[in-house]
Amino acid sequence: MIAVLKPSATGEQIENLTAWLEGRGLAVHLSKGESYTVLGLIGDVARLDTELLEGLDIVDSVKRISDPFKSANRKFHPSDSIIEVGNLKIGGPHFQIMAGPCSVETPEQISQIAQGVNASGASILRGGAFKPRTSPYDFQGLRADGIELLLEAKRQTGMPIVTEIMNANHLPMFDEVDIIQVGARNMQNFELLKELGSIRKPVLLKRGLASTLKELLMSAEYIMAGGNHNIILCERGIRTFETFTRNTLDISAIPALKELSHLPVVVDPSHACGIARFVLPMAMAAAAAGAHGLMIEVHNDPKAALCDGAQSLTPEQFAHVAENVRRIREVEAL
Amino acid sequence: MIAVLKPSATGEQIENLTAWLEGRGLAVHLSKGESYTVLGLIGDVARLDTELLEGLDIVDSVKRISDPFKSANRKFHPSDSIIEVGNLKIGGPHFQIMAGPCSVETPEQISQIAQGVNASGASILRGGAFKPRTSPYDFQGLRADGIELLLEAKRQTGMPIVTEIMNANHLPMFDEVDIIQVGARNMQNFELLKELGSIRKPVLLKRGLASTLKELLMSAEYIMAGGNHNIILCERGIRTFETFTRNTLDISAIPALKELSHLPVVVDPSHACGIARFVLPMAMAAAAAGAHGLMIEVHNDPKAALCDGAQSLTPEQFAHVAENVRRIREVEAL
Amino acid sequence: MIAVLKPSATGEQIENLTAWLEGRGLAVHLSKGESYTVLGLIGDVARLDTELLEGLDIVDSVKRISDPFKSANRKFHPSDSIIEVGNLKIGGPHFQIMAGPCSVETPEQISQIAQGVNASGASILRGGAFKPRTSPYDFQGLRADGIELLLEAKRQTGMPIVTEIMNANHLPMFDEVDIIQVGARNMQNFELLKELGSIRKPVLLKRGLASTLKELLMSAEYIMAGGNHNIILCERGIRTFETFTRNTLDISAIPALKELSHLPVVVDPSHACGIARFVLPMAMAAAAAGAHGLMIEVHNDPKAALCDGAQSLTPEQFAHVAENVRRIREVEAL
Amino acid sequence: MIAVLKPSATGEQIENLTAWLEGRGLAVHLSKGESYTVLGLIGDVARLDTELLEGLDIVDSVKRISDPFKSANRKFHPSDSIIEVGNLKIGGPHFQIMAGPCSVETPEQISQIAQGVNASGASILRGGAFKPRTSPYDFQGLRADGIELLLEAKRQTGMPIVTEIMNANHLPMFDEVDIIQVGARNMQNFELLKELGSIRKPVLLKRGLASTLKELLMSAEYIMAGGNHNIILCERGIRTFETFTRNTLDISAIPALKELSHLPVVVDPSHACGIARFVLPMAMAAAAAGAHGLMIEVHNDPKAALCDGAQSLTPEQFAHVAENVRRIREVEAL
Repeated sequence: MIAVLKPSATGEQIENLTAWLEGRGLAVHLSKGESYTVLGLIGDVARLDTELLEGLDIVDSVKRISDPFKSANRKFHPSDSIIEVGNLKIGGPHFQIMAGPCSVETPEQISQIAQGVNASGASILRGGAFKPRTSPYDFQGLRADGIELLLEAKRQTGMPIVTEIMNANHLPMFDEVDIIQVGARNMQNFELLKELGSIRKPVLLKRGLASTLKELLMSAEYIMAGGNHNIILCERGIRTFETFTRNTLDISAIPALKELSHLPVVVDPSHACGIARFVLPMAMAAAAAGAHGLMIEVHNDPKAALCDGAQSLTPEQFAHVAENVRRIREVEAL
Repeated sequence: MIAVLKPSATGEQIENLTAWLEGRGLAVHLSKGESYTVLGLIGDVARLDTELLEGLDIVDSVKRISDPFKSANRKFHPSDSIIEVGNLKIGGPHFQIMAGPCSVETPEQISQIAQGVNASGASILRGGAFKPRTSPYDFQGLRADGIELLLEAKRQTGMPIVTEIMNANHLPMFDEVDIIQVGARNMQNFELLKELGSIRKPVLLKRGLASTLKELLMSAEYIMAGGNHNIILCERGIRTFETFTRNTLDISAIPALKELSHLPVVVDPSHACGIARFVLPMAMAAAAAGAHGLMIEVHNDPKAALCDGAQSLTPEQFAHVAENVRRIREVEAL
Repeated sequence: MIAVLKPSATGEQIENLTAWLEGRGLAVHLSKGESYTVLGLIGDVARLDTELLEGLDIVDSVKRISDPFKSANRKFHPSDSIIEVGNLKIGGPHFQIMAGPCSVETPEQISQIAQGVNASGASILRGGAFKPRTSPYDFQGLRADGIELLLEAKRQTGMPIVTEIMNANHLPMFDEVDIIQVGARNMQNFELLKELGSIRKPVLLKRGLASTLKELLMSAEYIMAGGNHNIILCERGIRTFETFTRNTLDISAIPALKELSHLPVVVDPSHACGIARFVLPMAMAAAAAGAHGLMIEVHNDPKAALCDGAQSLTPEQFAHVAENVRRIREVEAL
Repeated sequence: MIAVLKPSATGEQIENLTAWLEGRGLAVHLSKGESYTVLGLIGDVARLDTELLEGLDIVDSVKRISDPFKSANRKFHPSDSIIEVGNLKIGGPHFQIMAGPCSVETPEQISQIAQGVNASGASILRGGAFKPRTSPYDFQGLRADGIELLLEAKRQTGMPIVTEIMNANHLPMFDEVDIIQVGARNMQNFELLKELGSIRKPVLLKRGLASTLKELLMSAEYIMAGGNHNIILCERGIRTFETFTRNTLDISAIPALKELSHLPVVVDPSHACGIARFVLPMAMAAAAAGAHGLMIEVHNDPKAALCDGAQSLTPEQFAHVAENVRRIREVEAL
């Protein structure tokens, strides 16, 4: 870590600060420029409070050199992590597509979709039981009943299931869930992350709407610090000034996260764009950029004129996406 | 609510959609433009899922006319809400300053600060016991012990206290806390909000880092929908591209929230800027723009060279801020 | 266009407004909801000043239904525009790669790079002569001399050239330039856009750092309104909170712009990421998402340790990118 | 400047880089941490190309310590700059209000407004002759005729005038204009800034919609590098995710710019919010935070129901704003 001191810092103030830093077990290298003095801090700076240091009157700015995430850091774990989900693997050369409805609604719905996507390229079933909704008056999901329906579909098809948790007190209901999803709005719900660190089940961690990649990795670190290293990162679109798409899918997050971390990276083009007809090009782009998997919304109600063309694809449209993604991955592998 | 249909929408599709909407209890007014058809939906649209509607192939865009927050809406509650905190009031003509340390550290620290700020213009004591930290390796606060220290300082000074909750399971510890704070990162932790709706204690709800004002009000609505109408809104800076200040304090949020809602609005200039010397001008600006209160960090350690000039003010600097704010409020009241 | 009036609007105010709008040649359809009144405006609303309307006390909000860009709008020009650049075409099925150095420096440099990229998949030579620099003390480009060097390289290789203009007074120097580039910072330099509307040469218009897609199309409209319809749109990354990459490349801009407009869309992954090793995955992603072309920085100085791995690729690395893009486009075409 | 090198940097690469930097006249201080090597660069780093350095494979990141703006920097010019505008001064203790219509329309309009605002607290007349409009089909201003009308109002009232320039070729028309305004969209129109550096007339430079404060100061530096030091900085709202106000007025820009630079800072609350009823609280907030001036839109057409409550104030409302601002400034001066 580097601390740049202001030109106004006196010799005594610099000595006080140096002594305080050394008292925290850090070695301090001092170098004086024309007007600024720079302190190089060597040792276990990860536990030093950057904001405290930045707030000091004599400190102009602070710059971390090594990243504060350790367990998630590729530097200390050079090879790709491969996460096991039932009999499947995700990460490294292993690519999986998670597909299913936004919300679990009825036994017929989830059963039909599960069979449909299973036949056309998806290996993991997704579906929402607990739904984070901006309005308290919106449908909040079938909750416990929704998880039961997912488990029934899992028994029918053999597909592992992924579904979102919103409250650590609900963990007992997730016993047979294969991947627990943490949604974008809970990415910095640190109490929930800590609880997920105490189990060993895979966690799919979605990037927050206005979070940086390093903040996402710090949230992964919260879970990993508890001992659970089975983390799958998920890029699902960030908030930008663009309003034509619901969010902006950050495809460059794929090579960036793969460089910074060893954890697998999946992409959710459905939520990112909010436009079903963009799922095909964006899923292809994600595969071309090296994603380890995709999460795609699929619905089963082609007859209801109402839902025709909603954010979700029909199973037929999904099959077309999955086939194109497969072809792109063949190029990517060359 | 207005739904604009695409030029490609067929008569049959429009009829199907109209029937589906009417089946949900809405009256549908159809008007045809040169190329677009517009549906005006009248009735209880708050419970209609906008995203579902927007996702339909034949729908170009959807526009809410009335806001989906009801309890927080000034339209249905024209007079200012006044929240009682112990013997104090906040909202309407009642202005309060909450002051205290970022983190509660020792009995001496919190006791000294409490007495210092009490003597110079603060009426409510703030202090962090549970600390939301980006890194799992950073100090997480004294937790239960921190609340005990706050309660001891409350007994000494008679000041009501405000402190942050991060987990609904901790609620029993907050029995004697006067205002429960929900931090920016938990603004959309809907499970926590629901639990806070079931109590009747005042809640200080901070705006999320990248949240709009209407999203903040929807989060207030989550609490109010449970029956707890004692909400204080708090603007604490939003994330922008500016890096000189930690966040950008949105002063226009004050008149905007006062127009949209009847709930009191307080401002936290300390966290917003992250620069102690900006607390004075920004606190004055907030008072000039009509805020109902301020939340200001104060520390008690003027001798420690280290902390000199950190994000927190000394009690003496705080007294100067409080005095200037008092003067500004005299002008504002003219 | 729809104007939603406030509940407080009186009958007389509504009548006044209606009369004023009709005086501007618009038909006004009035429909009253429970508390809001909605005016549907039909006719040539493109010329109506939305901000003026929004600013009225009785107006709650205004919503455009049809987009204010006409010449750039796919709705009025359903088939893809194909722009001719020398003997080349770009748009529709025609894909071109523009490659070359950030700045033109010496005759040897530009000549070597031109030959290198020409041999490995680029069809158009790019190079900066006028450089927009944040600092007045940074190198501003070779200016007129730089254009001369580009023209010399064009004569040697037969490749058309693209280079940036910053001042309409420089237009005479661009006589033999094949594509005139407008940089992100000049996207809303309306005086420059108007001048470019008066010529007939292709213009490559880059999206502003914080601009929406519709703002980009309005800037295209400025040029097209003058009669120059030879516009190539360019996505080059937008400003977000992410700092790991210089900007965030918005890949979903490709399907979005192709849906909104008939103009060709090219992508610049070099400037967007600022990281040479990300050009390969992002160029592949752009091709997979349907871009009509790419703009890639290439340098020629592999021996200079200094520049090794800068934002620019070597010609060898570029050849690898071009080959992978070619393969992705084969999949995309299926 | 500090350059942090990657752990992978070899001794030879570090030597090459050091030699290259020394060849540019810089002294290089090398310090090795556990895994990273840090180079401290001392000398005239302002002219070093940061992006080039950051792009090197062996460079992890680069951090400027001293700001690249020199002429605008308070460090080298500790006392406030005071800009003379006719017989008026702005900056330091001198505060001025610029008021007038968005667009100059008719001789009667500008004359009436000029007299109205002159009588109630404004000292400088503002009015748009050249209007930057997002759409080529919107009214572009009266242009040369508009400047004539402003000059006529100046002769009538004796008020200096400020109006926007969009094209350096128009400079001859601005001969008798007192302050030339550069709009937000042209903040990085470097060719225009250079031209304004060659004259000696005061320039009011508006912050770009998504620009940082240091970028604004670099644009001021462009003008000052040409020898024109008569710059007035203007905060006019930045683009954020909030949609209730048109932009978000960054009040903390006032203390920040005053700390970074010696140039005067004025605030435009009218454009920032786009809501006339917010001009009063935001003008008061700006004054409380220490602005050196305000720029406020005023219109003269109280009878036209249409314009009632538009973004502009009536002269009467303006008088109320000016009076409250005066009172706030009395407190601020204590």
